[in-house]
Amino acid sequence: MGLLSSFSSSYFDGGCFLKVQNEIKDSNIRQFLLRASVASSTPKSLNFSEMKAQISEKFRIGVLGASGYTGSEIIRLLVNHPNFEITLMTADRKAGQSIGSVFPHLVTQDLPDMVAVKDADFSNVDAVFCCLPHGTTQEIIKSLPNNLKIVDLSADFRLRDVDEYKEWYGQPPQSTRPAERSSLPLIPLIKAKLIEVRNIIIDSKSGVSGAGRGAKEANLYTEIAEGIHSYGITRHRHVPEIEQGLSEAANSEVTVSFTPHLMPMSRGMQSTIYVELAPGVSTQDLYQELRSFYENEEFVTLLEKNEVPHTRHVRGSNYCFMNVFPDRIPGRAIIISVIDNLVKGASGQALQNLNLMMGNPENTGLLYTPLFP
Amino acid sequence: MGLLSSFSSSYFDGGCFLKVQNEIKDSNIRQFLLRASVASSTPKSLNFSEMKAQISEKFRIGVLGASGYTGSEIIRLLVNHPNFEITLMTADRKAGQSIGSVFPHLVTQDLPDMVAVKDADFSNVDAVFCCLPHGTTQEIIKSLPNNLKIVDLSADFRLRDVDEYKEWYGQPPQSTRPAERSSLPLIPLIKAKLIEVRNIIIDSKSGVSGAGRGAKEANLYTEIAEGIHSYGITRHRHVPEIEQGLSEAANSEVTVSFTPHLMPMSRGMQSTIYVELAPGVSTQDLYQELRSFYENEEFVTLLEKNEVPHTRHVRGSNYCFMNVFPDRIPGRAIIISVIDNLVKGASGQALQNLNLMMGNPENTGLLYTPLFP
Amino acid sequence: MGLLSSFSSSYFDGGCFLKVQNEIKDSNIRQFLLRASVASSTPKSLNFSEMKAQISEKFRIGVLGASGYTGSEIIRLLVNHPNFEITLMTADRKAGQSIGSVFPHLVTQDLPDMVAVKDADFSNVDAVFCCLPHGTTQEIIKSLPNNLKIVDLSADFRLRDVDEYKEWYGQPPQSTRPAERSSLPLIPLIKAKLIEVRNIIIDSKSGVSGAGRGAKEANLYTEIAEGIHSYGITRHRHVPEIEQGLSEAANSEVTVSFTPHLMPMSRGMQSTIYVELAPGVSTQDLYQELRSFYENEEFVTLLEKNEVPHTRHVRGSNYCFMNVFPDRIPGRAIIISVIDNLVKGASGQALQNLNLMMGNPENTGLLYTPLFP
Amino acid sequence: MGLLSSFSSSYFDGGCFLKVQNEIKDSNIRQFLLRASVASSTPKSLNFSEMKAQISEKFRIGVLGASGYTGSEIIRLLVNHPNFEITLMTADRKAGQSIGSVFPHLVTQDLPDMVAVKDADFSNVDAVFCCLPHGTTQEIIKSLPNNLKIVDLSADFRLRDVDEYKEWYGQPPQSTRPAERSSLPLIPLIKAKLIEVRNIIIDSKSGVSGAGRGAKEANLYTEIAEGIHSYGITRHRHVPEIEQGLSEAANSEVTVSFTPHLMPMSRGMQSTIYVELAPGVSTQDLYQELRSFYENEEFVTLLEKNEVPHTRHVRGSNYCFMNVFPDRIPGRAIIISVIDNLVKGASGQALQNLNLMMGNPENTGLLYTPLFP
Repeated sequence: MGLLSSFSSSYFDGGCFLKVQNEIKDSNIRQFLLRASVASSTPKSLNFSEMKAQISEKFRIGVLGASGYTGSEIIRLLVNHPNFEITLMTADRKAGQSIGSVFPHLVTQDLPDMVAVKDADFSNVDAVFCCLPHGTTQEIIKSLPNNLKIVDLSADFRLRDVDEYKEWYGQPPQSTRPAERSSLPLIPLIKAKLIEVRNIIIDSKSGVSGAGRGAKEANLYTEIAEGIHSYGITRHRHVPEIEQGLSEAANSEVTVSFTPHLMPMSRGMQSTIYVELAPGVSTQDLYQELRSFYENEEFVTLLEKNEVPHTRHVRGSNYCFMNVFPDRIPGRAIIISVIDNLVKGASGQALQNLNLMMGNPENTGLLYTPLFP
Repeated sequence: MGLLSSFSSSYFDGGCFLKVQNEIKDSNIRQFLLRASVASSTPKSLNFSEMKAQISEKFRIGVLGASGYTGSEIIRLLVNHPNFEITLMTADRKAGQSIGSVFPHLVTQDLPDMVAVKDADFSNVDAVFCCLPHGTTQEIIKSLPNNLKIVDLSADFRLRDVDEYKEWYGQPPQSTRPAERSSLPLIPLIKAKLIEVRNIIIDSKSGVSGAGRGAKEANLYTEIAEGIHSYGITRHRHVPEIEQGLSEAANSEVTVSFTPHLMPMSRGMQSTIYVELAPGVSTQDLYQELRSFYENEEFVTLLEKNEVPHTRHVRGSNYCFMNVFPDRIPGRAIIISVIDNLVKGASGQALQNLNLMMGNPENTGLLYTPLFP
Repeated sequence: MGLLSSFSSSYFDGGCFLKVQNEIKDSNIRQFLLRASVASSTPKSLNFSEMKAQISEKFRIGVLGASGYTGSEIIRLLVNHPNFEITLMTADRKAGQSIGSVFPHLVTQDLPDMVAVKDADFSNVDAVFCCLPHGTTQEIIKSLPNNLKIVDLSADFRLRDVDEYKEWYGQPPQSTRPAERSSLPLIPLIKAKLIEVRNIIIDSKSGVSGAGRGAKEANLYTEIAEGIHSYGITRHRHVPEIEQGLSEAANSEVTVSFTPHLMPMSRGMQSTIYVELAPGVSTQDLYQELRSFYENEEFVTLLEKNEVPHTRHVRGSNYCFMNVFPDRIPGRAIIISVIDNLVKGASGQALQNLNLMMGNPENTGLLYTPLFP
Repeated sequence: MGLLSSFSSSYFDGGCFLKVQNEIKDSNIRQFLLRASVASSTPKSLNFSEMKAQISEKFRIGVLGASGYTGSEIIRLLVNHPNFEITLMTADRKAGQSIGSVFPHLVTQDLPDMVAVKDADFSNVDAVFCCLPHGTTQEIIKSLPNNLKIVDLSADFRLRDVDEYKEWYGQPPQSTRPAERSSLPLIPLIKAKLIEVRNIIIDSKSGVSGAGRGAKEANLYTEIAEGIHSYGITRHRHVPEIEQGLSEAANSEVTVSFTPHLMPMSRGMQSTIYVELAPGVSTQDLYQELRSFYENEEFVTLLEKNEVPHTRHVRGSNYCFMNVFPDRIPGRAIIISVIDNLVKGASGQALQNLNLMMGNPENTGLLYTPLFP
């Protein structure tokens, strides 16, 4: 049973969680909101040729918050997508402007002008990506038509909102965000009980685009170039979600050390993860587990032994490269994984999710080769 | 008559020059070598459905010099190309290595290992891209089978070699290189006699990838970051070719001032061009001429008035953005054009050429949206 | 007669212009405001030992607008200055904060906290540097005590304000700003009638710090890194001042073409200047004129022939490196000069001016070797 | 008792180790070679005025390996040093060249031309800095005159060479290198038994200049910009020295996890260190210990609580900024320290050492304020 049917089966069994094992999409995908009415309205028995027919008409996609970096990135991916077309883009502060005036690199694309979200016409939209600034998503999503499919890239539906969220939507949200890509190598190793769940240390190095396009002194070129610094030490907003994912995998509460660093690069995130091996386990065992766990995952690549992942080798692509190395300290290992934070860490993953929701092969429109140098 | 048939007609009339007017492909394309035997063996009357049938088998492509930046870029473009597939890659110093060990960003691709050019088997190759280091191309091309189609990205067949070249190949080479993309806005304006051909000043700013992947002290990160400098002042190797192109357009000998600058960026080239207007001509006239000249060219975009082209807005794409501005000094204008030097300035343009040679729409496999930020 | 006495003699002859020939300090220095009462109160006959005695007490310096980049740079230069000490720093939005919280790189320095300019106590200040945002300087300077010496780094006293300025201060301002460093090589060549004053084309490449520390989307790391673009084409605010300086040198009105480009570097400015030689003049003549004109100027270095100036080779220093090259087009030359825009282009030049005003050797506290790499 | 006398007393007590407590100069300084004859010839009772007199003649300094980055950095620091002057510079491959042709940023300095080390005349040299490539230092140092004072910045005298070293020099070398600056915060905490010596994890982020000026593909701008990667995982050459320093502090064998990362910045190194607190110890205890340990150390700055060290805030300076933060995982802490790898991590520290050897205040010529932005 392929990924798609695997997905479909759980999907139409009344659940809203994606049950594709290998990339742990059930817990790792970004916020993925499906109202009951939407889920039930999706045809259960759509076969591939029916899907193709449907696809030939293309699904109509809205991008809410199209003037930020995750917004422009989802647009970049959508303009060449064979099954989706953009029919709506909102950006309150840029309402009335063309995409070319907001993002000149998209000037060659034939796209609708930006509108304010309050003026948006959702009648010709099948699904939306929410790329809204933090703190604004909840109100807007509440106001959306019931039949819309929604993939949320924002960080609004925090874990602490679960109860409130349930009240509104009748089900818990699936809530994960880019940083949790740090968990990609950890979850299978924890599930297989190959590493200890205590003292997991994640030293993360992130590109500046993760901070968004808002004008802040701290993100000026002059404040970022040619240096590095940590930020949000011990209290980064991604930590609770990482811990929730790992806790589920471990069936026990996991607390991690997570220290992000801001780097002079626009895109990319490396997680250097320091772990303790379970008794009797070797680094080779970790390598084998990751190899078998991800062997059918197109976008997760375990490199050859000793090959070091570089962020610049996944730039602009939906790939996650990872590897595992023995530590000098006996009984420990070092895991390194890299992604493009705007693609696998945000818009690419979101599109991968919508592909699955809409019945496309999950790699549709995502096979961009990394741009190097 | 569309681009393709326009191309075809001149192509099969026994000439080897591409006669597509608007992007001045006859003079601006990169070295484009077709031996007589090759040209005549191409079916004259292939209609589109026949081409499609042929395409379904895919043309088999070799990349000579696959371990450099133009080599890896042509590979990046080819791996998603619907009509071409790579069946041969040569790199003498990396012979025997996999693409993933030479270019880890391509590790997910299923590609043949590198071989030495002397060991290459051309029996399963229809066309090759020559991405060889300067000074080595000529000997290698001489040794290639006669029936190969060749697109040469190197700078070997200099203008001074024309006579020698003719002796070997029975026809003159078409020889243009990335820098001559500087000529894209100039040639139509000269042809239309809107600007003077004297005192044309081209101030060019280039990314470091143009210097190749060879290990040189001058191109170390530490020697390039956070600074700018000019190089090759007045004697850059691209000058003769620029001057030849402009001279042809002017029907008189043109000498230009060309000063390249090396910038701390991996990709991109901006040409800031200072020109004198012909008597009675306004900047608006230049704008109109460029608008009409390039209106049907998918990859050349004249921006809206006052919009400034940025190199980062074409990064990773085959687009050229340009615009024209009035100078403070009456009777003068400033023209700015930007490209990605590895795409429109090298591998993308080369692929555009092979598309035409092979009867594909010229944009096939080239519709990458720029990667920003 | 040395620089110092040269300066003194003109200084106390009732004029306010610095009459040091070689670096054209009379016209090229930044805004240099001296009220009559100040000038006359300065002892005319101070000899060097008297100065030393005075110096042993150190002059007390205020920095107005200490939270911006020119402010922090003047502080960097002052903390190691043997004759000046900072006794006041103002920054309205950061009032009450320590220097370490505003500029952590200065945290080891023992400096007063920032105050709002309206709360500043000027009773223990001998001279101030005005590093205020554009548009605010004029009002503040009017309110300063009469006995303060002032060096203004802002761009407020524009040329058009001269009449109004005179009304207030009884004398014209000396008004020059960083960009006019572009004029350093031009003025002696114009004075010597070695180049034509028509069609002077200045293609300028600037670091981002010149745009200040204000939070603007356009100056985010993600919007600047790995690219280049022009800005303010033909209407940059520095143009009138450049033209005024050149017009004075030429004794006729000069209009220049000036196109600035924003580069991914924090510091540095290169001017690539394209000029027409006067009849019978050679590039070698230009070289000789610059050699003799600047041979006694410590901070202006004409490089050896063919050596290309790099911005990174003057980073953090008060040096200007320049050179002249023959153009391919006969009768033309290319002049390249580089500075650190925050030092020679702003705070270093301002300190050089205050050194002269206070009777110090002009290089006092300015002999920082460039920081490379 | 000040640092100087503290140093002197141990120095002349027949030992060769610097016994300045706080910055742990006895163990942390770089290779510091003093032959017995040299040590004994140094006057024991030199008072400050005698030193001044001696200083007025300036010590004559040689720089061996002047064409690399640590070489140019020691030159940058020496040209403004009040007590030292450069009288010899060697660089075998650049023999006969001027400093300006090898390092244009030093072109304004009046310095001797480079010579081959075999042609060097040591008769007018009092002390040398060895900035030689790895693997060449030992032979050259053996051939030096006996009366030379030597500060070695290379990595040649590895720990395993101690016995051989002793044979030659009659005393053990003091052998520490830049990376061991990672130990600055660790050693006092280990000595005070505030942290466990097991599972110390050092995640290090380094600038590219640490890799030297040699032409390597891996260090090209295009291979480094806009990305990050780990290198030398678990087997970096600095590890043994770090472990030796910590083992000495702990009086037991310490094994650390040390993972360096190469960053797109020319200068700077951040160490993010993850430690386990000893039972009953709080992060606050660590902070207090570091505060008291380093309070008299001019170049080691413990920041205010919660202030995060940035590499860019020490660029070009000899400062080390550090701070300590509580981890999310109870019983753990995160220590962050930053330096400029070329200054505090190499040439600045070396000069600090020579200052002490020569009886200067250790900060002489080292009070450069960081260059920001």
